[in-house]
Amino acid sequence: MPKIEPRLPKGMRDFLPADMLKREYVFSVVKEVFHLYGFEPIQTPVLELSETLLGKYGQDAENLIFKVQHSRSSKEPLAMRYDLTVPLARVVALHENQLTLPFKRYHMAPVWRGERPQRGRYREFYQCDADIVGVPDMSADAEIIGVVVTALKRLNFPQFTVKVNNRKLLTGMGVYSGVPENQLAELYRSVDKFDKIGADGVEKELKSHQIEPEVVNRMMHLIQIKDGGLESLNALESKMQDIPIAVEGISELRQLAEALDHAYISLEHFEFDFTMVRGLGYYTGPIFETVITDPNLGSVTGGGRYDNLIGLFRRESLPTTGTSLGIERMIDVMDLLNLYPAELNRTVVEVLVTIFDEKGKAEATRLAAELRASGVATEFYMNGQTRLGKQIGYADRKGIPLVAFIGPDEIAAGQVKLKHMGNGDEYIINRDVVASKVYELLQKQPVRESAR
Amino acid sequence: MPKIEPRLPKGMRDFLPADMLKREYVFSVVKEVFHLYGFEPIQTPVLELSETLLGKYGQDAENLIFKVQHSRSSKEPLAMRYDLTVPLARVVALHENQLTLPFKRYHMAPVWRGERPQRGRYREFYQCDADIVGVPDMSADAEIIGVVVTALKRLNFPQFTVKVNNRKLLTGMGVYSGVPENQLAELYRSVDKFDKIGADGVEKELKSHQIEPEVVNRMMHLIQIKDGGLESLNALESKMQDIPIAVEGISELRQLAEALDHAYISLEHFEFDFTMVRGLGYYTGPIFETVITDPNLGSVTGGGRYDNLIGLFRRESLPTTGTSLGIERMIDVMDLLNLYPAELNRTVVEVLVTIFDEKGKAEATRLAAELRASGVATEFYMNGQTRLGKQIGYADRKGIPLVAFIGPDEIAAGQVKLKHMGNGDEYIINRDVVASKVYELLQKQPVRESAR
Repeated sequence: MPKIEPRLPKGMRDFLPADMLKREYVFSVVKEVFHLYGFEPIQTPVLELSETLLGKYGQDAENLIFKVQHSRSSKEPLAMRYDLTVPLARVVALHENQLTLPFKRYHMAPVWRGERPQRGRYREFYQCDADIVGVPDMSADAEIIGVVVTALKRLNFPQFTVKVNNRKLLTGMGVYSGVPENQLAELYRSVDKFDKIGADGVEKELKSHQIEPEVVNRMMHLIQIKDGGLESLNALESKMQDIPIAVEGISELRQLAEALDHAYISLEHFEFDFTMVRGLGYYTGPIFETVITDPNLGSVTGGGRYDNLIGLFRRESLPTTGTSLGIERMIDVMDLLNLYPAELNRTVVEVLVTIFDEKGKAEATRLAAELRASGVATEFYMNGQTRLGKQIGYADRKGIPLVAFIGPDEIAAGQVKLKHMGNGDEYIINRDVVASKVYELLQKQPVRESAR
Repeated sequence: MPKIEPRLPKGMRDFLPADMLKREYVFSVVKEVFHLYGFEPIQTPVLELSETLLGKYGQDAENLIFKVQHSRSSKEPLAMRYDLTVPLARVVALHENQLTLPFKRYHMAPVWRGERPQRGRYREFYQCDADIVGVPDMSADAEIIGVVVTALKRLNFPQFTVKVNNRKLLTGMGVYSGVPENQLAELYRSVDKFDKIGADGVEKELKSHQIEPEVVNRMMHLIQIKDGGLESLNALESKMQDIPIAVEGISELRQLAEALDHAYISLEHFEFDFTMVRGLGYYTGPIFETVITDPNLGSVTGGGRYDNLIGLFRRESLPTTGTSLGIERMIDVMDLLNLYPAELNRTVVEVLVTIFDEKGKAEATRLAAELRASGVATEFYMNGQTRLGKQIGYADRKGIPLVAFIGPDEIAAGQVKLKHMGNGDEYIINRDVVASKVYELLQKQPVRESAR
């Protein structure tokens, strides 16, 4: 039969066990934090009807969506989900009778975008989203920032800051500066590049859009007001007290800061940054973006309030705010800075049971079964003809912490020899207490009966 | 803006939190058993190159594969994975330098098949596979059966049996009976329907394929030999000792039974059934299928040895055996028989912190932050204007076990009132020990510092 060359699609990845265990560690910490904040898991299909996705993200994004065909689904154009936010809006509208508001949900799942592959950018990647549906109050936005801060702290991220801005305030600044209403979208797009092209770049771009120089100057001054704290809000309010939408945006940011203070989240972890825009069109109020500041590694989470999106699928919309953790970027940063706990293992296996010879295989099988029944993750070496040294080498390569030997002497004495691969120590143990010794050596909590 | 009707693609499902928690319970038990047996997690992309998938499953199956297109991937025809076995073969061939054999991996992930949707059959569904690459010995097949038996026992499945057969033995039976070699595939296909159409149906179908009546009679007699145990192997061997492939198949089944015995797995949980075939063409040795016997609910797992598949992607193949747990079917059966533990909650939230009035919101926010810092999954009720009765109703509807009250009296006294929703008991607790009381009431283990 002709061979097929084993290949991956462009921009997509396999994860082998050692990498998977690192990823799962990150996911489990994030999940634990979502639970602490009372967010509940949901799951939606990878495929959505095309009509559900199209028209939500803007044309550039839409070009990146993967289309799916099937002989039985020709009357049903399908697409692979592009993010987890639009599926949430669909879910809320579809199942509204089964949901109790406020609805706090999280969703950890892959999304697909046909981007040009490059370092750190993939065509299949995971997102971890937490959103709150049904709460207009800024306490919900504070919860979202709380989740982000707590997750990054628990993952040992060193310096980071959640940058906070408000779409209403940005609009107010545009109005105050004299930007014509039909150019506000262009204004957002240019300011959004502040991080990349700097103040000069944004200024040049705005002027190239035929926005008058004094308008641009006023705008550039406003967005660059920064001490990061409440003072900057006061400064803006004193200028824009006659622009209702600006006043509303500032008031939201004040309420947000207050709610964060009550939740013990200080300016150490967030700051106001009026140059931060967030690309997506659907945001309506506060917006958030977390940057790793030292070393300067760019943004790892983004989010904000989008009170109108659910209204696309439902007669009346519902106020909603949330965040998406850029978990792939976070994992890249964790790899780079080696933020994983020292005790994180490269394998799930706790003990390798070796096989002395073909005759000893039965007893080794029994020992493995006994260890497993006691809750010890056990591999037994299945190719019996392999010499012991090679079996130990296998444990070493895989990072298995303990190796068990049960040769003729041990069988006769009802004992087992345990070798600690880290320090080379060996222990001769009575067979009936091997599992306890393993628990002790691995500093593992005994499994409660109820958990078995 | 025009509204879009919120709809799901045919044969696909959303899972809301209460269902997700049930599913996650099942997945976590299976995962724990995979770990006990030393299987390691991997992940592959949902999309594979079409050439990777096509030609592996037979034409009928291939018609069910979803094709994927993208403007940037036109030179790269893509398809959504149909199972987790072919991706494993590709992974082993692609990453052989990074893998240590034997390679024991598990993979829990969705697959897509464009089947006609019907009750219990979906177009997107999860599979949970465990496979062992690199071990020709039957001890690997025994490990696979061990995983299945242990997982079903831990999930509280009542009566179940792993049916075991062997492809070599089936071929031997065909040869012995006088089935022409070019009709062996047809023979498998007909025998595979034994469960559905019975002995008479299979007999009729074989005869309709122009297989001679006495050949059919010989074959029907052989496949229906059953006491389920080693005796039936003896009976077959005495007849077919001159058919080498039959002798080989019987010998493999004997070794398998012996290895299962060493692993303390008895005939209570497996039996030989020579009418069981398994549809897929790539099996080469022992095959397994688990049926729920009482009540008779059909099959929940399938698997077997496929020593040639990896050879499609690699110069030399590697002996491989494994199983796929039909996790969706298992969940359906668990729902039907209500096999979930009584303590499984409908929500991740442990405490709802209520809000007495707008003024008390700050203190409620602080209490929620304190509980979270102590590891308690806490929701605080974010719409402050809601009266307490309605907030309690919300906790009740969501199944939150404990509700905390912090009104003016409690704030003044530095206390919190806790209400146990199950029995209505109320407790007045000093604020600094609320978390401990919650742990006590929920019989929750304190979080170790190292796990935080």
